[in-house]
Amino acid sequence: MNVESVILEMAREAKAAAVQMARCPSARKNEVLHKIADQLEADAAFIQSENAKDLEYARGIGLSDAMIDRLTVKDATIRSMADGLREVAALEDPVGAVTRSWTRPNGLEVSRMRIPLGVIGIIYESRPNVTIDAAGLCFKSGNAVILRGGSEALHSNQALAGVISRVLRETGMPEKAVQVVPVRDRAAVNVLLAQEEYIDLIIPRGGEGLIRFVVEHSRIPVLKHYKGVCHVFVDQGADIAMAEEISFNAKVHRPGVCNAMETLLVHRAEAEAFLPNMARRFEAAGVTLRGCPETCRILPGTPPASEADWYEEYLDLILAVRVVDDMDAAIAHMTQYGSSHTEAIVTSDYRRARRFVRDMDASVVLVNASTRFNDGGQLGLGAEIGISTSKLHAFGPMGIDELTTTKFVVFGDGQIRS
Amino acid sequence: MNVESVILEMAREAKAAAVQMARCPSARKNEVLHKIADQLEADAAFIQSENAKDLEYARGIGLSDAMIDRLTVKDATIRSMADGLREVAALEDPVGAVTRSWTRPNGLEVSRMRIPLGVIGIIYESRPNVTIDAAGLCFKSGNAVILRGGSEALHSNQALAGVISRVLRETGMPEKAVQVVPVRDRAAVNVLLAQEEYIDLIIPRGGEGLIRFVVEHSRIPVLKHYKGVCHVFVDQGADIAMAEEISFNAKVHRPGVCNAMETLLVHRAEAEAFLPNMARRFEAAGVTLRGCPETCRILPGTPPASEADWYEEYLDLILAVRVVDDMDAAIAHMTQYGSSHTEAIVTSDYRRARRFVRDMDASVVLVNASTRFNDGGQLGLGAEIGISTSKLHAFGPMGIDELTTTKFVVFGDGQIRS
Repeated sequence: MNVESVILEMAREAKAAAVQMARCPSARKNEVLHKIADQLEADAAFIQSENAKDLEYARGIGLSDAMIDRLTVKDATIRSMADGLREVAALEDPVGAVTRSWTRPNGLEVSRMRIPLGVIGIIYESRPNVTIDAAGLCFKSGNAVILRGGSEALHSNQALAGVISRVLRETGMPEKAVQVVPVRDRAAVNVLLAQEEYIDLIIPRGGEGLIRFVVEHSRIPVLKHYKGVCHVFVDQGADIAMAEEISFNAKVHRPGVCNAMETLLVHRAEAEAFLPNMARRFEAAGVTLRGCPETCRILPGTPPASEADWYEEYLDLILAVRVVDDMDAAIAHMTQYGSSHTEAIVTSDYRRARRFVRDMDASVVLVNASTRFNDGGQLGLGAEIGISTSKLHAFGPMGIDELTTTKFVVFGDGQIRS
Repeated sequence: MNVESVILEMAREAKAAAVQMARCPSARKNEVLHKIADQLEADAAFIQSENAKDLEYARGIGLSDAMIDRLTVKDATIRSMADGLREVAALEDPVGAVTRSWTRPNGLEVSRMRIPLGVIGIIYESRPNVTIDAAGLCFKSGNAVILRGGSEALHSNQALAGVISRVLRETGMPEKAVQVVPVRDRAAVNVLLAQEEYIDLIIPRGGEGLIRFVVEHSRIPVLKHYKGVCHVFVDQGADIAMAEEISFNAKVHRPGVCNAMETLLVHRAEAEAFLPNMARRFEAAGVTLRGCPETCRILPGTPPASEADWYEEYLDLILAVRVVDDMDAAIAHMTQYGSSHTEAIVTSDYRRARRFVRDMDASVVLVNASTRFNDGGQLGLGAEIGISTSKLHAFGPMGIDELTTTKFVVFGDGQIRS
């Protein structure tokens, strides 16, 4: 079979499986998730021997140590995948929940009920644990899923999918509810992105190149996760100690992730009091600063930031710093250079806190808290399938609710339209 | 200027206007909507004289009488456009509404707040009233909108847009919040569909050809409205008089619309009692039947339905009729041949009513009511911007809430991640 017919067949079977998945009761889904978790642990040796083939291949094509580290399935990786599934089993099932209901003047009772989206395609890069995490969330929310991982993880992903298939088969669940694309050929992605008749949503997880490729080639709706150029604004009159803690945490806690701060904005009135101490603390943590002229004046020796720095997602221990005249200037800066991902203010002023919340256009807007809280788990959504930076369907962290939609349910007693 | 730079400029200006629109208070928006309504009525003569140019052009290119009728701006059309805007002004403003809020163990207060989508592109065919209806809904929900109507309605649409611009200017609102593409060139649509940097959503309104074209060429998310192959299933033990009223209403009330019934499914146990009377009533109303073998046996002389009939959206006084063994067979038929648009059951059985509601995958699922209720106004959403037949973001009728998304708002008192 060629790639095209392989993918087409997978998509068709996924759609048939989705019909059965949508009707599957919660208790049943949870039981199966626990069985998959147990089976992953029982089959650890097999999974790791398949993973070893990928590692050998990866070394052969000269992947970096960091990439190889992400590809490696350690004992702890398996334990964490299994525990992840048990946590997903414990989440409330969104399917069937009525989100609103009302009665019309003619007596019709109308409600909106959560239902699965149908078939979800996930396209991702190295890490094999995404296979299990994504499969678990799609399964719990009653969807069928087609997973296309990095080609260097093919053996690992097929081994993981094999474990899931076996449990689905043994428990009488639709086996095609979770499928892994079994070929390395990149053409498989293009074919997948054209199956709008069978697939309801594509979620790409990976670098900007992957996401742009998917958006450009997909006829299926895509939930995008572009870069996070996140800011903290230290307002006039802010609690300086708090501002320092939040700024430090936002930059240093995990600099390589999308919700890390990339540019720090400081109100002119606080700059002299705030920046010198803050800069010493950043320096001690190995953070390199790039400053606007006013910053460079207050912190002599700081290299100047260029226009390009304000747009930059460093994902590293580098921070751009700009002194602004007021909150309007801060919001204007974030609107122009930011990516609508995560924006925080540190303030003691009631009216400016309210206005920042109202006017700031970002998926997560925070007052007096670190940008690092833009995360499904941290915000209480349970496990996270991604963070959407576009506004349609979901904006910000997506939990299992975001893998559902609503249908209208109408109960009548013979109503007709006149 | 060439088409490309015209559209690019419009998109950029729309994005800037959207920032201002998002911050505009409700009372202000409502006041402006009323002023636009008044101005439309005041400028009726001018609008109609511009419309006359379109009508002359349309006659010149040989458009059908039906098309010319839809293109004509009568006195009543203007009144209805103005009243529509006043109704939109009366709707509750979704922007700023908090849809949910909760507190995390670390004291963070998290909520989800409705915000506008940003810039919406509407691509539609003949009727100029769409210009006003769509502009009103986008404006009320705090979005900027770019309207691209049928090329045969260009003068009318520009006249309408001119009225809106004038009011926006005079009231100090961002004038580029509502714009009509000022060129007939079809290339404008392709350019529009490539502006993913500035436009957040495309809504095509028109025939299947237009929608498929838009889906295929857009890099921007599209809310699709494909065909409605809607069914009524008359269950065993149904109230036969009610089944007859609902079936008649679903087919005959307005056969040319997407929520009209196209195939009637009848439980074997009721077929003999139900079909002969129903058929007489349909015949009297000019409805032509096409039947499965069992239907043709009960109603001799009925032409047989082919496989293609089950997929057909007649939009006409034609009805396919099939006798089925039970509700499972009815659901299987709707799942295979339907378009997930609107599905109704007429039943007296509690368990089957519940199971139909749970298992039927359609944007609106009705028990004992006509399919004709799949409509934003009828279901209580206020005015409707369209009916989505795909599941992402919205499924079924879309009101102004569906022109918004939510952002996360987080209030803390210094929380950082550890």
